[in-house]
Amino acid sequence: MEGKKFLRNLFFLCGIIILLFFTISNLPYPPSNSLGCTTNSPWCTSSKNRFQFKNPHVIQFPSDSKLRRHSTAVPHHPLDPLTIPELNKVKKVIQSHDLFRNSNYALHSVVLDEPDKQLVLTWQKGDPLPPRKASVVARVSRVSHVLTVELETSKVILHETGPHSGYPTMTVEDMTSSTWAPLANADFNRTIIERGVDLADLACLPISSGWFGKSEEKRRLIKVQCYSMKDTANFYMRPIEGLTVLLDLDTKEVVEITDKGRNIPIPKAANTEYRFSAQNYHQSLINPISIEQPKGPSYTIEDDHLVKWANWEFHLKPDPRAGVIVSRAKVRDPGTGVMRDVMYKGFSSELFVPYMDPTDAWYFKTYMDAGEYGFGLQAMPLDPLNDCPRNAYYMDGVFPAADGTPYVRSNMVCVFESYGGDIGWRHSESPITGMGIREARPKVTLVVRMAASVANYDYIVDWEFQMDGLIRVKVGLSGILMVKGTSYVHMNQVNQQENLFGTLLSENVIGVIHDHYVAFYLDMDVDGSNNSFVKVNIERSNNPPKVSPRRSYLKAVKNVAKTEKDAQIKLKLYDPAEFHVINPSKKTRVGNPVGYKVVASGTAASLLDLDDPPQKRGAFTNNQIWVTPYNQKEQWAGGSFVYQSQGDDTLAVWSNRNRPIENKDIVLWYTLGFHHVPCQEDFPIMPTVSSSFDLKPVNFFESNPILNIPPNVEKDLPICNAAASA
Amino acid sequence: MEGKKFLRNLFFLCGIIILLFFTISNLPYPPSNSLGCTTNSPWCTSSKNRFQFKNPHVIQFPSDSKLRRHSTAVPHHPLDPLTIPELNKVKKVIQSHDLFRNSNYALHSVVLDEPDKQLVLTWQKGDPLPPRKASVVARVSRVSHVLTVELETSKVILHETGPHSGYPTMTVEDMTSSTWAPLANADFNRTIIERGVDLADLACLPISSGWFGKSEEKRRLIKVQCYSMKDTANFYMRPIEGLTVLLDLDTKEVVEITDKGRNIPIPKAANTEYRFSAQNYHQSLINPISIEQPKGPSYTIEDDHLVKWANWEFHLKPDPRAGVIVSRAKVRDPGTGVMRDVMYKGFSSELFVPYMDPTDAWYFKTYMDAGEYGFGLQAMPLDPLNDCPRNAYYMDGVFPAADGTPYVRSNMVCVFESYGGDIGWRHSESPITGMGIREARPKVTLVVRMAASVANYDYIVDWEFQMDGLIRVKVGLSGILMVKGTSYVHMNQVNQQENLFGTLLSENVIGVIHDHYVAFYLDMDVDGSNNSFVKVNIERSNNPPKVSPRRSYLKAVKNVAKTEKDAQIKLKLYDPAEFHVINPSKKTRVGNPVGYKVVASGTAASLLDLDDPPQKRGAFTNNQIWVTPYNQKEQWAGGSFVYQSQGDDTLAVWSNRNRPIENKDIVLWYTLGFHHVPCQEDFPIMPTVSSSFDLKPVNFFESNPILNIPPNVEKDLPICNAAASA
Repeated sequence: MEGKKFLRNLFFLCGIIILLFFTISNLPYPPSNSLGCTTNSPWCTSSKNRFQFKNPHVIQFPSDSKLRRHSTAVPHHPLDPLTIPELNKVKKVIQSHDLFRNSNYALHSVVLDEPDKQLVLTWQKGDPLPPRKASVVARVSRVSHVLTVELETSKVILHETGPHSGYPTMTVEDMTSSTWAPLANADFNRTIIERGVDLADLACLPISSGWFGKSEEKRRLIKVQCYSMKDTANFYMRPIEGLTVLLDLDTKEVVEITDKGRNIPIPKAANTEYRFSAQNYHQSLINPISIEQPKGPSYTIEDDHLVKWANWEFHLKPDPRAGVIVSRAKVRDPGTGVMRDVMYKGFSSELFVPYMDPTDAWYFKTYMDAGEYGFGLQAMPLDPLNDCPRNAYYMDGVFPAADGTPYVRSNMVCVFESYGGDIGWRHSESPITGMGIREARPKVTLVVRMAASVANYDYIVDWEFQMDGLIRVKVGLSGILMVKGTSYVHMNQVNQQENLFGTLLSENVIGVIHDHYVAFYLDMDVDGSNNSFVKVNIERSNNPPKVSPRRSYLKAVKNVAKTEKDAQIKLKLYDPAEFHVINPSKKTRVGNPVGYKVVASGTAASLLDLDDPPQKRGAFTNNQIWVTPYNQKEQWAGGSFVYQSQGDDTLAVWSNRNRPIENKDIVLWYTLGFHHVPCQEDFPIMPTVSSSFDLKPVNFFESNPILNIPPNVEKDLPICNAAASA
Repeated sequence: MEGKKFLRNLFFLCGIIILLFFTISNLPYPPSNSLGCTTNSPWCTSSKNRFQFKNPHVIQFPSDSKLRRHSTAVPHHPLDPLTIPELNKVKKVIQSHDLFRNSNYALHSVVLDEPDKQLVLTWQKGDPLPPRKASVVARVSRVSHVLTVELETSKVILHETGPHSGYPTMTVEDMTSSTWAPLANADFNRTIIERGVDLADLACLPISSGWFGKSEEKRRLIKVQCYSMKDTANFYMRPIEGLTVLLDLDTKEVVEITDKGRNIPIPKAANTEYRFSAQNYHQSLINPISIEQPKGPSYTIEDDHLVKWANWEFHLKPDPRAGVIVSRAKVRDPGTGVMRDVMYKGFSSELFVPYMDPTDAWYFKTYMDAGEYGFGLQAMPLDPLNDCPRNAYYMDGVFPAADGTPYVRSNMVCVFESYGGDIGWRHSESPITGMGIREARPKVTLVVRMAASVANYDYIVDWEFQMDGLIRVKVGLSGILMVKGTSYVHMNQVNQQENLFGTLLSENVIGVIHDHYVAFYLDMDVDGSNNSFVKVNIERSNNPPKVSPRRSYLKAVKNVAKTEKDAQIKLKLYDPAEFHVINPSKKTRVGNPVGYKVVASGTAASLLDLDDPPQKRGAFTNNQIWVTPYNQKEQWAGGSFVYQSQGDDTLAVWSNRNRPIENKDIVLWYTLGFHHVPCQEDFPIMPTVSSSFDLKPVNFFESNPILNIPPNVEKDLPICNAAASA
């Protein structure tokens, strides 16, 4: 027994030494360079999947000139994100503040404290900026704090964290340190080794523990589960099933190890690789194809953040929590030439990703990716030519590390014009009239894209602007499934009655059923801030006999929502409606109120029990549409402090106050959903699945706003040659 | 009174003379050239909108070499459409047949009588073709006939027309002659002139009369309504409201004139033009943009109809009724290299477009565009660079006129590779693991497109093939609204209680609410013909207390449809399911049955009363999904003879027989719907609105079939210059 204990301790010690060695020797940046895009991603249990760092194609560091520009950046617009000099100032102010001076602390969020909406609305280019303030969320000695730092005065205003449950978004340091903390536990190391996994092959993931009652209360907890990365970079397909380590996130102390499923083999590495460099063969199915703009792009980006394209203008910024924020979206009226307000602010506010397996190692997987992990923090540099086409412009994010030091996330957002061959509008005269008319206009759009890799999964979020005034918001899902180990290698081993909670994707691998919900905050300001929400119900009307040969027809019945509960909408195919945000004070020439409508496409609704703790936390999925009065504090659909929250600060709670929303500054919320029953095609990496919704002008313009755009003619198109022959 | 009568007759005479003059003098082709693409569109009441014929950009005639090729074409594949020599032969056989020799007749349809499915499935390139046959639908002395002509033997097999109600698809000659037939009626001409419209400015449309009971029975009827084309090519915006002429379609005799609404002014021409040449100003919002393929396209089209692209292969042909037909769609298995069957045949089978106005001049507008007008007959030449991108290939249609003479519809279908910047799949490693992985693949697709202009409306139908095995079928709506005249010029004149049946779009113009439904026939052959339809219901399961901290989760419950009624599906957001067509005899390596699923996106359901005559005729919209056993006679969802049909031969009637469908050759039907409440942006021409559904592999492949495709690299992309600088 003594011998065994000695051996155990030896393994443990070796593990730590190996770990420290690789961590230090593989740091991909000089420790003094605080601006590298991977400053916050230093950790990896093994070096062997690190070789990509040497390939400049894979991770792009900001160039020197880019770094210099960021280092001296100044804000130009009231909504511009904090610059590196501003973030450095915040760091200094915090460091010298009484609360922080003699304590351990971590900054969980440092972002611009946006000026009051009225100030932003009245600000014009050339005006001095409203006072710049930073909103800081910090943990100090296990207590969460919210502060405002006035940059000019270095004044700190301390706020209560409020009565709500939950903790701030994890820092990247929280996540990375959690993944190696279990190695400090001998029991953990022993079970890993006993399962036949070399400690050097271990990859672990920090899994938000959710909230299910008392056991998750009063301390910040996280669950860690691990994988073998032997012989594959796609360790997600090699789960060490049934082993869950419960950690205290503040102390990194192991609270509990659940060690089940030892009979479940770790799935093989074969066929799991997805990297191009690791494929046995390549399959070139097509010739090169590219979107080309011989005279260059048609957009300009002023002062780093103000995008102007065709008839659109909007402010665009990366955000550590939302990913990207689109603000002050305006479209030019073709009749008057005036830029007209459409949306004050739009962003992905929260995600909810419940897995559908109630067993021990799975029940808690009910991610809220924006509030728990930071949707923007997880948005990695985009891959030029593949994540975005050749004609894309890239925008960097600037975020602070936990100690307040700013770093640059290079190429986090891309902007490009898209043309896939679609038609903007068309008409041919038919053989019936015989008139020789054939008019068609190509449809070209402007896409803003970011892609967040929340561990295994990749979310692609596109804001697509059309010249006809439509904004399409599209969410694509790709990346890698979260899978479960099983002893089954063939479905003929499975009893018909048994619920696998998913699909057998490969030998010993089950893709577990799950949902994805992405809630969008859409502060519509249709021709001004005071708007109303109108349900235009499409209802059947039956004719009395003999009034018409037609027995029935559909009519549009308008219902203006007076209070929030009138605007809690569940979509119904057999009780359809249009959902308009109108400006009741602005009418078209013939007297229709100007408006935009939200148009759903394919979506899914959460079917979980309303009393299920995850559903309470993700209660913004109880409806597809909600409308709330504008309130600067109500931006995050799952609440400000989502981590281990109890659902006491969600969109559902706010909306149930049932405040008046007629002819007020209102915010529209739309939640896009997906049910995902995995299939073998999702293994080992998923072809993208997308869904979208539209914000579409409805009597906003007097008439078709793109009537006057010209058709394509041959002489304007480029002359291209294959690069090889050039 | 006598004087008035004289005047009336004089006007009538003048009208006819003017009409004949313009018709003849403006014939855009020499009468002897029977192959011109506008052979079947000679009619127009006025010359002034004809000038476009002189602009080669607008109407494209087949080139001489193209005509020569068509004139000598031979079939290569069992499913190839009838060639010009074959159509000429059919014409000759018919002419000399007893039934036709001494009678007036019109051929309403002459298409390939497709060989038995088994013959087609076993046929291989190099084999002799199965005997070529033509299926002919003819009207002879007011009686409909269906015949089969054996081409080799010139043998005619006469068929019964069957017990069903209804008449064949109108010929183009039916439609065009109907539009001028009212001019033979003095009352009609008088009312036109009294309404202040010059007869030379008149444009009339043939509107299928539907079926509402006895009054539509026993003779072929059509309703004609007219417009003023004074000062605009967009006469659709200038309705002569309330005037409806009921015609006998066979004799062109005026049966009844309903002359109401004289107090309603004809809306003004101002702002109705959409042609580029007629715009007061042009709005160039963007620089040129183009999809470029420096090494050429990646597809080949063998023998005119067999399309091969990337891992796909399918047979493609224009069809006068369906528009395009995709057959024998197969995808290559990346593991074995074998081409695997996916779909035997797919096409848009029928449309249903009910307008929602029960008043006299509108109640009957309940179009079934494929069966009444011919969706393919209305598909006009596509506009290169605008309807399809520069890199498109164009395919012609070859159809017969009513007398059997073949003509060429040039550029009716286009095929192109599309790349709009989307991502096929991607994964970045997040800061959590810190691995420097960034892999993404661009998504390139192959699009097959046609656009049918059924009078005012334009339907764009895309079949989009993805390399991951997915087929997306997309329907776009553009073109021009069918509008109603009104005396209102502003909404403040309208009593709140009054139902306008639509939206006031401009002064005196109401866009009437309507629906669009497009039913698709999808004969899936997933790895062979015998398939089953499986509903995979996604159901909530509640955990007993204390079993799990989770109260609920979703599980997938498979239900195999035994008979047709099991597969009559109404989609429900809160009772979701996946809908799989599987091959129960073919399993993947780990034992899942191979399958494809139909994935709905945004859609609409018909809410009309099930007993309303139009809904009976369009009963295929009673469900979104149906599955029937394969039956060569059941291809047209509204029945074979749709014109004035009574709904006795629809998909709903067939399906209610409740035949067995398990492990059989089955056909999947999906109907896409739109509710269209018009808005001012739709005036005077509508920006395209689209919706789609997907056929998506589900455990069809062992794994992601595009794992091995390479990423884009700069050196493969073209070097382009602006044309002006080249």
